[in-house]
Amino acid sequence: MFKNKNNISVCFTTAQFKKYADGVSTVVIVDILRATSVISTAFEYGIETIIPVKTLEEALLYKNKDKHIIAAERNTLVIEGFDYGNSPFHYINSNVKGKILALTTTNGTKAIHLAKEHKVITASFINIDAVANYLQEDNNDVIILCSGWKGCFNLEDPIFAGALSEKLLASHQFSSTCDSMQAAIQLYASGKNNLFDYLSNSAYRNRNNTDALIKDTQFCLNPTIKSSIVPIFINGKLIKN
Amino acid sequence: MFKNKNNISVCFTTAQFKKYADGVSTVVIVDILRATSVISTAFEYGIETIIPVKTLEEALLYKNKDKHIIAAERNTLVIEGFDYGNSPFHYINSNVKGKILALTTTNGTKAIHLAKEHKVITASFINIDAVANYLQEDNNDVIILCSGWKGCFNLEDPIFAGALSEKLLASHQFSSTCDSMQAAIQLYASGKNNLFDYLSNSAYRNRNNTDALIKDTQFCLNPTIKSSIVPIFINGKLIKN
Repeated sequence: MFKNKNNISVCFTTAQFKKYADGVSTVVIVDILRATSVISTAFEYGIETIIPVKTLEEALLYKNKDKHIIAAERNTLVIEGFDYGNSPFHYINSNVKGKILALTTTNGTKAIHLAKEHKVITASFINIDAVANYLQEDNNDVIILCSGWKGCFNLEDPIFAGALSEKLLASHQFSSTCDSMQAAIQLYASGKNNLFDYLSNSAYRNRNNTDALIKDTQFCLNPTIKSSIVPIFINGKLIKN
Repeated sequence: MFKNKNNISVCFTTAQFKKYADGVSTVVIVDILRATSVISTAFEYGIETIIPVKTLEEALLYKNKDKHIIAAERNTLVIEGFDYGNSPFHYINSNVKGKILALTTTNGTKAIHLAKEHKVITASFINIDAVANYLQEDNNDVIILCSGWKGCFNLEDPIFAGALSEKLLASHQFSSTCDSMQAAIQLYASGKNNLFDYLSNSAYRNRNNTDALIKDTQFCLNPTIKSSIVPIFINGKLIKN
């Protein structure tokens, strides 16, 4: 039996995080397009450990190290000199099995570091059920931190926050009076019948309309794989829970 | 004829404003419950000038000065030693006519100062039509700045941002790819049939459930007065446009 219901907060951007941070809650990092979807995919295809780093220079320190691969993305592009980028399809192959991935992206990996005084896990539509189960077991207050776009609100992370909040509330173990959680649930309700169409006018879709990025977007919103792995950030590394 | 469509951005909290600020756009300050609704009401009932100040100490400098009245609110309460608080009903009387009001509130007056490098106006459901007309005449890009609650997202300011954005888009003079504007319009669509009921589980309503505050909330969401005055912030003072 749980003494009290655990609280859910949703923080829409990294720029606001210090207003929500309490040093105690479990923080769920969300960067649906694409970092946390990539992290779920990479673990599911056998990556052992992911080192999320903030800068390209830090990632390059791992180049040519035994068992390591390095991946970088800035403004949706792969960076020259790196093995992989920020597409989930880069990791759907057997070469990644058993490897350690050093990864830097525009928003998601920065959000992980921002929250590091808390217990931090990462979430995507690929591992949403596993994350919901983990948080119920965890029995702690939850802050869902949307990575956003360079400190600004985006649409794709809040709809995931709404989807996850719905699952948590349905367990009757959580409650909330957080206005952004209510907004996230309403936005998810507006879009859930077809998330890809829902985001057709979003800033992300307007910026990223190549065939490859559209394929990535479709995969991240309606994944063809499901993962039971909950990546947890411990001592600077994401490991499988 | 307008050379290009003007842009609309919506910033959900003061904590994010520096990500949206460009020094050029016209900034519309929104604090529906209650500061910008009070400002509209006070002007409509004859206040000549409003001096929005950040601290209680600054407001007290105007106490007993000729023609001045002072008003203060912190966490919804009137502060001892002040003439008025942050209820619109305090200003629906003939005593305010021709007076200069020094006003400090928890969120709204701080948001005005935050944006002061821009052209700043204030908006509420009381003067929404006048504000929409003003912005069409102004022919400038627009940032709608939601005051929020102590740097966090609230529900009541974004629904106003959605209502105002709808009017601006309907004029065909504005366009936007701003995700928070799209979210604001969707949230307004969810609530517009009954804004008071829509906010029944909001943090504001949970915090403020006295009879007097419920009456204020009903007035601010469904005002029984309309104002054609657009308050504009010039040299530290809000004056009538």
